[in-house]
Amino acid sequence: MDHTLDAIVARDAADPLASFREAFQLRDGLIYLDGNSLGALPRATVARMDEAVHDAWGQGLITSWLGADWVGAPARVGDKIARLIGGLPGEVIAADSTSINLFKALAAALSLRPDRSVILSESGNFPTDLYMIEGIERFSGGRVRSEIVDPADVLGRLDEDVAVLLLTQVHYKTGRIRDMATINRMAHDKGVLVVWDLSHSAGAIGVDLTASGCDFAVGCGYKFLNGGPGSPAFIYVARRHQLATPVLSGWFGHARPFAFEDGYDPAGGIERFLCGTPPILGLVALESGVDLHLQADMATIREKSLQLGALFCELMEARCADFGFELVSPRDANQRGSHISYAHVHGYEIMQALKAADVIGDFRTPDVLRFGITPLYLRHRDIYDAVERLREICLTRAWDRPEYRERAAVT
Amino acid sequence: MDHTLDAIVARDAADPLASFREAFQLRDGLIYLDGNSLGALPRATVARMDEAVHDAWGQGLITSWLGADWVGAPARVGDKIARLIGGLPGEVIAADSTSINLFKALAAALSLRPDRSVILSESGNFPTDLYMIEGIERFSGGRVRSEIVDPADVLGRLDEDVAVLLLTQVHYKTGRIRDMATINRMAHDKGVLVVWDLSHSAGAIGVDLTASGCDFAVGCGYKFLNGGPGSPAFIYVARRHQLATPVLSGWFGHARPFAFEDGYDPAGGIERFLCGTPPILGLVALESGVDLHLQADMATIREKSLQLGALFCELMEARCADFGFELVSPRDANQRGSHISYAHVHGYEIMQALKAADVIGDFRTPDVLRFGITPLYLRHRDIYDAVERLREICLTRAWDRPEYRERAAVT
Repeated sequence: MDHTLDAIVARDAADPLASFREAFQLRDGLIYLDGNSLGALPRATVARMDEAVHDAWGQGLITSWLGADWVGAPARVGDKIARLIGGLPGEVIAADSTSINLFKALAAALSLRPDRSVILSESGNFPTDLYMIEGIERFSGGRVRSEIVDPADVLGRLDEDVAVLLLTQVHYKTGRIRDMATINRMAHDKGVLVVWDLSHSAGAIGVDLTASGCDFAVGCGYKFLNGGPGSPAFIYVARRHQLATPVLSGWFGHARPFAFEDGYDPAGGIERFLCGTPPILGLVALESGVDLHLQADMATIREKSLQLGALFCELMEARCADFGFELVSPRDANQRGSHISYAHVHGYEIMQALKAADVIGDFRTPDVLRFGITPLYLRHRDIYDAVERLREICLTRAWDRPEYRERAAVT
Repeated sequence: MDHTLDAIVARDAADPLASFREAFQLRDGLIYLDGNSLGALPRATVARMDEAVHDAWGQGLITSWLGADWVGAPARVGDKIARLIGGLPGEVIAADSTSINLFKALAAALSLRPDRSVILSESGNFPTDLYMIEGIERFSGGRVRSEIVDPADVLGRLDEDVAVLLLTQVHYKTGRIRDMATINRMAHDKGVLVVWDLSHSAGAIGVDLTASGCDFAVGCGYKFLNGGPGSPAFIYVARRHQLATPVLSGWFGHARPFAFEDGYDPAGGIERFLCGTPPILGLVALESGVDLHLQADMATIREKSLQLGALFCELMEARCADFGFELVSPRDANQRGSHISYAHVHGYEIMQALKAADVIGDFRTPDVLRFGITPLYLRHRDIYDAVERLREICLTRAWDRPEYRERAAVT
C-alpha cells in the first residue's frame, strides 16, 4: 500500500462511507479509536432522545406505550439488529444487559439438554461470560458443572456430556475471529448447543447466524452499534429453540402481560425472552445507532475495516518498528475483527500519553493497547495521524512521565 | 371536609408542595392520575438527559465513565433512593429491571437458607413477582418449591421449611399496605427471610426499611420516582446479608471489574448486586426524578397524599354515589398507599371516556379503575375536576359508546 499522505487523502476522497462521519458528533482533532468500547454519538440520537423524553414521555405519558409503540420497541430494534447479523425477523430481541442475556441463553440451552450437565467455555473469554456461567453452576446445586479450558482445547472437549458451549466470536482483547459455522457443526455433531457472544461482532464484521447454523447469541449495544453508555443488549434465539421456557420469566415475556394473570404463560415467539419492563430510553438511543448501520451495509463496512486495519498494521511496521510493540491480534486481517491490539511493556503509560495527544484507545491488562476500527466515523487520515502521534511519543519517550503511571480503577 | 370550590382552591394556595408542580412538564387541562404507572416528566430531566447525551457521551466518550462518574451512578442513585425508604448508605443500588432484581434478591435469600426449600407468596401479587418465583423453581430442578397461597393465609403458612417470603408492600391493584415491621418479625421468628416489593411504595409512602428490620427489597423507578419509561429499578440488601454470593454474577459486580480476571470475586458491598454494564442514560433520568423527591420530604409528600386521597373518596361519595362504583381500596387512608381503586361493571369503558375527557387513570382487569395520587404534581383542584368530569360521564352515560368497548393489548 502507498503510505504517502497524498495517497491516504485520496483514499478518503474515494471512500463510499465518507459521508457517515458527519452523522456522528466528533470533536476536531480527536482521533477516537475506542468505538469498540463505547461507540461515538450519532448526531440524530440527540434529537431522537429529546423527542423520546420531551414528547413521548413528557406529552404522551402512559399513552406512549401504544402511541409511540414503546411496547414494540424490543422486537422492532431486535428485528433491525437481526438484519446486521443474519438473523430472521422474530429471532432477536433487545433488552437487558449482555450479562443478563447470557444467563437467559445458557439457561434456555440447558433446559433443552436436560440430560447433560456441562457448560464449556475457554479461559480468557470476556470475564462476564465466565462469571455468568459460575453463577448458574452455583445456583444449580450440582446439576450444572462448568469447564473452562484452554482456548486450544475447547473443540477437543466437545462430547456428549456437554450441554452448551459458550464462545465469543471476536475476542475482546486480541480480536481473533472464531469460525462460527465450523464450530457449530462440530458441536452439533455431539449434540452440543452453542451460545455465541457477538459483543465485538455486531456492527463490526459480517455475521450470518442463519447460514452458520447458530442456536443462541447475545451481544452488546454500546460498542459498534453506537447505542450509548450501558445500552440495552440483545439476544438471538433460533426459531427452532424458541419453545424453551425462560428461567428469567418476567411479566414482559408473558403471552398476555396486561391480563395480570397469576400463572406464567410464555409468549409464543422471541418475546418470551423479555423479562421486566424494557428500558425505553436506552432502546431509543440504540435504535438510532442501529439505523445508521442499516443505511450503510455490512459488506461495505467490513471492507473499509479491513483497509483501515491493514493500513494501521503497515504503518506500525513502517513507522514504529523500533519501539518494542508486539502485534497481539492475528496478522491475517480475515482472522481479525474490527480492533487491533499490540502488547508493550510500557503499554499503560503509552496509552496515557496517547490520550494526552488526543488519540483515544484503551488499555487491557497486563500490557495490551487496543485500537478500535470503526469505519463509519474513522478516516484513513485518522489512522495515519494516530500512528504519527504514537511515533512521536515513542521517539521522545513522552510516555515516561510520573503522572502516566498512576492507574485509575477504570481505564 | 369542605368540598366547595373555594375551600379547595384555598387548600391549594396553602399547599407547601405547590411549587413542585412547576417542576414537571404537564399540559394544561390534563389531569394525570396515572403517575403510579408512569410518573410525569420532571422539567430538569430534559436538560440533564441532553447533557448526558450531548456532553458526557458525545464529548466525553469513553472518558465519562470516570469523568462524569458513570461508574459510580448505580451506587450514587441507590444511596439517594435509600434516603427515601429508610435504607443506609451502601444498602441500595440502582440497575436492571424490578424483575431481574427480584431474581437477585430471591436467589440471595435462598443461598442464606440452604436447608429450606419453599418460596412463599400470595395469589394476586403483582404478576412478575409470581412469574420470577416460577422461573427459579423451574431452574432449581426440585430444590426450590413455590407456594402461592391466599393473602389471608400467608402469615399462617410461615414455618421452618420456608426460606423466603415475597410480598408487595402496597398492592398494585387495591393499594392495601402490608405492615412490614410486624410481618418481618413474624417471619424472622420462624427463620424466614423476607423480600419486599416496593414498586408502589418508593416515593409514595413513608418506608423505613431499617426500623422495620427488612432483609431485602426491590422497587421500580418509573412510577412514583419519575425515572422515565422502563427506568432502572433498585435492590436493597441489608448490610448483614451482603455476604450472599449473587447468582447473576456479572462483571460489574466483581471486586475488580477492570482487572478482567477469569474467576468471579464479588465486590465487598452492595456493588456485588450489580450484574452487567449499568444503563447510564436510564440512571441519569432516574437520578433527576429522585433528586426532586429529596427536595421535598416523604412526610410532607405522604401528608398531602392522604389529603388528596381523602378528598377523592369523599367527593366520590358526595358526587358519584348513585353510579355503581365500589371502593376496592381500603377505606382507612392509613391502610392505603398512594393510589385508589374503584370497581365498576363498566370500568373499562368508563376509563376510556375519562381519557377522552383528559383525565388519565388506568384500568386493571377485570373491572378496576385505578387512580394514582402523586402529591408533587397534583392539586386539590385536579381531584375536584376529575370527579366532576367522571360525574358528567356517568350522568350522560358518555361511556356507552361503541369505540370505548374495544380493548387494546395494552391499557
